[in-house]
Amino acid sequence: MTDSPLKRPLREQYAGLRNGTLSATALAEVSLAAHRSRGQHDHAYLTWNGEAALALARTIDAVIRQGGDAGALMGIPVSIKDIYAVPGLPTYAGSSQRLPQQWEEPGPMVAALLAQLPSVMGKTHTVEFAFGGLGTNAHWGAPRNPWDRQAHRTPGGSSAGAGVSLVGGTASLALGTDTAGSVRIPASMTGVAGLKTTAGRWPTNRIVPLSTTLDTPGLLAHRVDDLAFAFDALDRPLTGRTDRVPAPPPLADLTFGVPGAFFWDDCSPGIAEVVEAAIRRLKDAGARVVTLDLPHTDEAYTMFQQGGLAAAELAAFLKTELPEMIEVLDPNVAARVKAADDMPAWEYVRRCTVIDRLYAAAKSRLADVDAMLTPTVAITPPTLESLLPEGAYARANMHALRNTVIANFMGLCGLTLPVGKDSAGMPVGLQVLAGPWQDARLLAIGQAIEEQLGTGISLLGEPPAP
Amino acid sequence: MTDSPLKRPLREQYAGLRNGTLSATALAEVSLAAHRSRGQHDHAYLTWNGEAALALARTIDAVIRQGGDAGALMGIPVSIKDIYAVPGLPTYAGSSQRLPQQWEEPGPMVAALLAQLPSVMGKTHTVEFAFGGLGTNAHWGAPRNPWDRQAHRTPGGSSAGAGVSLVGGTASLALGTDTAGSVRIPASMTGVAGLKTTAGRWPTNRIVPLSTTLDTPGLLAHRVDDLAFAFDALDRPLTGRTDRVPAPPPLADLTFGVPGAFFWDDCSPGIAEVVEAAIRRLKDAGARVVTLDLPHTDEAYTMFQQGGLAAAELAAFLKTELPEMIEVLDPNVAARVKAADDMPAWEYVRRCTVIDRLYAAAKSRLADVDAMLTPTVAITPPTLESLLPEGAYARANMHALRNTVIANFMGLCGLTLPVGKDSAGMPVGLQVLAGPWQDARLLAIGQAIEEQLGTGISLLGEPPAP
Repeated sequence: MTDSPLKRPLREQYAGLRNGTLSATALAEVSLAAHRSRGQHDHAYLTWNGEAALALARTIDAVIRQGGDAGALMGIPVSIKDIYAVPGLPTYAGSSQRLPQQWEEPGPMVAALLAQLPSVMGKTHTVEFAFGGLGTNAHWGAPRNPWDRQAHRTPGGSSAGAGVSLVGGTASLALGTDTAGSVRIPASMTGVAGLKTTAGRWPTNRIVPLSTTLDTPGLLAHRVDDLAFAFDALDRPLTGRTDRVPAPPPLADLTFGVPGAFFWDDCSPGIAEVVEAAIRRLKDAGARVVTLDLPHTDEAYTMFQQGGLAAAELAAFLKTELPEMIEVLDPNVAARVKAADDMPAWEYVRRCTVIDRLYAAAKSRLADVDAMLTPTVAITPPTLESLLPEGAYARANMHALRNTVIANFMGLCGLTLPVGKDSAGMPVGLQVLAGPWQDARLLAIGQAIEEQLGTGISLLGEPPAP
Repeated sequence: MTDSPLKRPLREQYAGLRNGTLSATALAEVSLAAHRSRGQHDHAYLTWNGEAALALARTIDAVIRQGGDAGALMGIPVSIKDIYAVPGLPTYAGSSQRLPQQWEEPGPMVAALLAQLPSVMGKTHTVEFAFGGLGTNAHWGAPRNPWDRQAHRTPGGSSAGAGVSLVGGTASLALGTDTAGSVRIPASMTGVAGLKTTAGRWPTNRIVPLSTTLDTPGLLAHRVDDLAFAFDALDRPLTGRTDRVPAPPPLADLTFGVPGAFFWDDCSPGIAEVVEAAIRRLKDAGARVVTLDLPHTDEAYTMFQQGGLAAAELAAFLKTELPEMIEVLDPNVAARVKAADDMPAWEYVRRCTVIDRLYAAAKSRLADVDAMLTPTVAITPPTLESLLPEGAYARANMHALRNTVIANFMGLCGLTLPVGKDSAGMPVGLQVLAGPWQDARLLAIGQAIEEQLGTGISLLGEPPAP
């Protein structure tokens, strides 16, 4: 596992594939070996596609040898969250049943990826219909957080298998989605980097919808630098924009806003301390750090606890498209969908206007700084056992989503990168938030932070063998 | 009243103001005289601003004499529906109480108008919060449809005083809004032309909202040609677009779609016949006429009858901004707002997705023709008396809105122009619909139709004296 080529920077893999020191076949074979040795333990994939990916990789290498180049992600092992439609692979969206055929016809995001001929290693587990932040699933079981050898701790969700696929060594890049934190939470809990794009930037067609208003495609990888590389490979075909991630700015040129309250409340032991230490190191390196609180965070979080927009939007989708699924939902998902029945239409409309107001207020407040820094997740990944008592899941789920959902409700883009381990020995993420459509600059700022603090692999080492 | 300069084409008024044969003062004085002679009978205005407008007109004339030109609408007498915020004038939105100060600070539409220095003659009556198609108002009474001297017939709504202000000779241009037909219905019922713009084209800020999704600012005037003139004066400051209404195309170059069903059902005596005759004359003049039915009209109309989007959106606005008004609503408005309490949030979300689908389907269907032709309103303006029996208002209101709301639910732009009188001697409108953002071309097509069929003033003559 150590020194796996899949854990090298994507830029090195890109160069190696083209200078002959690496091959798509070799990358796929290492992925298959990792899957053999720890796949059953990690439980990252609902649909494993390794053998088909290896066969394709051999032909990709032949193309590369002939000088063919389909794009920056050619030959890179990738995992895809099981709510994206991918041709030839079933979509369950974490539910108990295979969804209709239309959910196997690719949308723009998967099309932009596949056109570059990556090795698609499989489809990773998700919370059912992506409606949960811990990564549990009553139908398929939860992937195992690789950082605890003894206890089965949650991997974070809803992109539950995405981070595990990276840490377990079967993929170098993972596609997830983030509606309230579903990219950043699993990235933080498994010790990798994650990008939540600005809502509306990357299209969500043919991604099974949770919230038509707030769903965003996102990426997970070992480093912010890898996210920047993959972002540049995907953003242009998806948006037509020609801007790229700029060079990382000097830390001395940056002003970071750090909240005085809310995000720091009720953190599990060690989390606030590790994030504070990381911010102190950035300050020591010359960054300016100021206190900055986002407006109306309490109002936003209260609205989220009451179901936000997603509960009604998922209910509308299920009642219209998949009514037969409602009776057989994961109980934890069913409870939140059911609660939407009691919400009147006018209350949904009211929440939409509140969200518009939050977007405007947050954008204005963030104009004062280059980015905002917070702990990504306030709690250590809970054990599955701890979630069993009545009400425990609901409480832990809200707590896990608290720090991330603020960015969704305020229209921001955000990323997380690992900065150490908490008192339970589990990874801790630093959340970096920026205003809408600042995705490319946010990645450059994240790279500057990573250059100073070190990458997740350098800070966390290898996960324990299963 | 006859030969009032306010009833001359806007292009002639524009030229006369600049060549010295007409003055803003003279136009305002004629408006004041008309208001004295029939204002009380017509009851078009909630707030009459004639004297202030006259004082301003005198200064406007001085500017014109010095060669100053503030824009195409300079010195033109205009009425404004009482849901637009206008500085210095109260806004009631048809309710029983003056709304808070923010509703007297102008939005983009009024700012674009006022910057051209028109004569604002007053604010016209509206159905309370614009939620009704007949023009009734329990607080302020209904304007009188000027075409029936005996009976008090409805003027159409919700822009209830807009058409009456034109026919009564107090304004040459009227600002209305159209969420389900509220420009086209009063225009049709009072024998003038009306334009419903594409949703999203002209901003709705500081217009008291009925439906944040479907509200559109619109214009009423005596001729389609006047609408085209005013559109060109307002569209550029509102949108930044530089396209103008093109020259009217030859009828022989146009293909009109005429529906086979739905729009023709249950029309009051004479309405279908007058519209069919108008279409026949266009065909005789060389236009191509094909049968074309919009997809899913029944589904759209059923959804409208169940409250559409507006019921929940108005309820959200009132509960958030004006909760004390809910208990004192016009009973006909209250009934529809109250019904929204029983609509769950997911049903609202579902309707939004249906609307998205209807938009796409209608746009695609309309690509086959230059425009679609239908009767604007299926019923003759009912007498107030006929609306008194239990259930009569609800039935007539739905029936009046049926042919117009289809355009709102399908994302179209549309206009109406008078083409004759029905068996009750009341004006009949021809509705012309085109795909989204075709507003400028739609107006050119409407001008071509008007050139062939004649203007409302030539077809209908003068209304009876009060």
